[in-house]
Amino acid sequence: MTPRLVVPLPGNEALAASIGSHLGVATGALQTRTFPDGETYLRFEDQLADRTVILMCSLNRPDPKFLPLVFAADAARDLGAAKVILVAPYLCYMRQDQRFHPREALTSVSFAQRISKTFDGLVTVDPHLHRFRSLDEIYSIPSRVVHSAPTVATWIAKHEPSAVLIGPDIESEQWVSDVARRAGSPYRVLRKTRFGDRSVRIELPDLTEFDNRRPVLIDDIVSSGRTMIETSRLLKEQGLLPPVCIAVHALFTPDTERQLLDVAEQVVTTNTVPHHTNGIDLSQEIAANVTAVC
Amino acid sequence: MTPRLVVPLPGNEALAASIGSHLGVATGALQTRTFPDGETYLRFEDQLADRTVILMCSLNRPDPKFLPLVFAADAARDLGAAKVILVAPYLCYMRQDQRFHPREALTSVSFAQRISKTFDGLVTVDPHLHRFRSLDEIYSIPSRVVHSAPTVATWIAKHEPSAVLIGPDIESEQWVSDVARRAGSPYRVLRKTRFGDRSVRIELPDLTEFDNRRPVLIDDIVSSGRTMIETSRLLKEQGLLPPVCIAVHALFTPDTERQLLDVAEQVVTTNTVPHHTNGIDLSQEIAANVTAVC
Repeated sequence: MTPRLVVPLPGNEALAASIGSHLGVATGALQTRTFPDGETYLRFEDQLADRTVILMCSLNRPDPKFLPLVFAADAARDLGAAKVILVAPYLCYMRQDQRFHPREALTSVSFAQRISKTFDGLVTVDPHLHRFRSLDEIYSIPSRVVHSAPTVATWIAKHEPSAVLIGPDIESEQWVSDVARRAGSPYRVLRKTRFGDRSVRIELPDLTEFDNRRPVLIDDIVSSGRTMIETSRLLKEQGLLPPVCIAVHALFTPDTERQLLDVAEQVVTTNTVPHHTNGIDLSQEIAANVTAVC
Repeated sequence: MTPRLVVPLPGNEALAASIGSHLGVATGALQTRTFPDGETYLRFEDQLADRTVILMCSLNRPDPKFLPLVFAADAARDLGAAKVILVAPYLCYMRQDQRFHPREALTSVSFAQRISKTFDGLVTVDPHLHRFRSLDEIYSIPSRVVHSAPTVATWIAKHEPSAVLIGPDIESEQWVSDVARRAGSPYRVLRKTRFGDRSVRIELPDLTEFDNRRPVLIDDIVSSGRTMIETSRLLKEQGLLPPVCIAVHALFTPDTERQLLDVAEQVVTTNTVPHHTNGIDLSQEIAANVTAVC
């Protein structure tokens, strides 16, 4: 097997070290700095010739991260890397998967094409697949999807053995039911109507039969947190306990966590996006999937 | 000729309108907004089918601008544009034109390749060509370079008829001498040794013979402004007048203009990068070069 090297882009050092350790391979380093004019400088610290270079970069708030990532990938290839793999624990630009209005940019496709031309393989965790059934519909490179459900379920079973899981919408039902089955908990899903980026109407089913259970709200992506905050309010109206909020991908705005903690018992996230609420570690599962592509 | 449409990316509206007016073509609009998770949404307001779409985007502080620009270009093509042209009055990532240290990312080449795969043509103003002699060495699409020298010289001749021009380094001598000849002014260039992104040592030739002339410092790119600030100090030591500072591309940090105005008589820039010091209008010259590529 070609020798492998895990190299984090800035901010991804902790998860890269953990994945490197599970893989039993070295973690390399990339020096980066920003010039006074806003351009990015990058330099690898390691010899890359004939190695499989695994670049680690979670793609939350993606726009400023894209060019540095491309520069790193191109440099790795120039420097003789045998393969250049992207591990993006959070994969961005999956939500605009069709034109909802005429003349919109189809960002999911543009983004996927650019990544596919830059890397030889992709590993990610629970991509937001809605109208696309698989990454292969838009990504033309081999990809592997890590499923967070078993690890999330293990966390719930351990920390909230008497839970009722609540998923954000009908589309999430399959995933939520899988987590619930593994955790040995009942579950329900919300009915949700979206009126814009920041406005949703939520209907909570009658949960009074579960008033002795801890509500556990789970969602793949939490950014503003409006859904979870509104759900928590509705739970209170029904006389239920304050919920535990679990997000796979913590795309929190600066206010999200504080607002959630006003209404929730606890906020827990996986480590796909670095955040101090990361309580569910997926590095072993990511490492296993990296091994499958290189 | 295919009908043309000029469409600005956010922040480029004024120059786009001016160029559209010189071309005698409509200026279109691109709706953009940022989702709570930091992703960008884009939608064209105009029909693009069978038109040459001229996207206007100055590429100062380029990293966050790149993906939205790519998304706009891909969408224009999807929507039937006959050609998609980039007008980038300031073209970024021209400075890392070789590996100064082993294992550095060659950002100029990576960037040029991505732009070349996305657009059918490129128009820019005075790109920072140093070791590359022409954009064609790294860009594989037709490109046109607008030369600011005649317009800058006209400004100097009108506003500072008794000037002595001072260029930043030996490499700029050809450009500075061209501006000086057109403006009818004498010129000199500095000797400059760079110790890092923000540290330079500057030697100013003896200019005491010009103590009745207005020193005019000219440079293609001004970001931190350290060179112009230090030169102004050396001019004062020689008993010369406070200078007029002219930048083609105003890549100013938040402090640059204030620090320059502490030591200079006036700061004037061209409108390749939108800034309130833009006193030299290049829209007519840019429009003429757009006509040459589409």
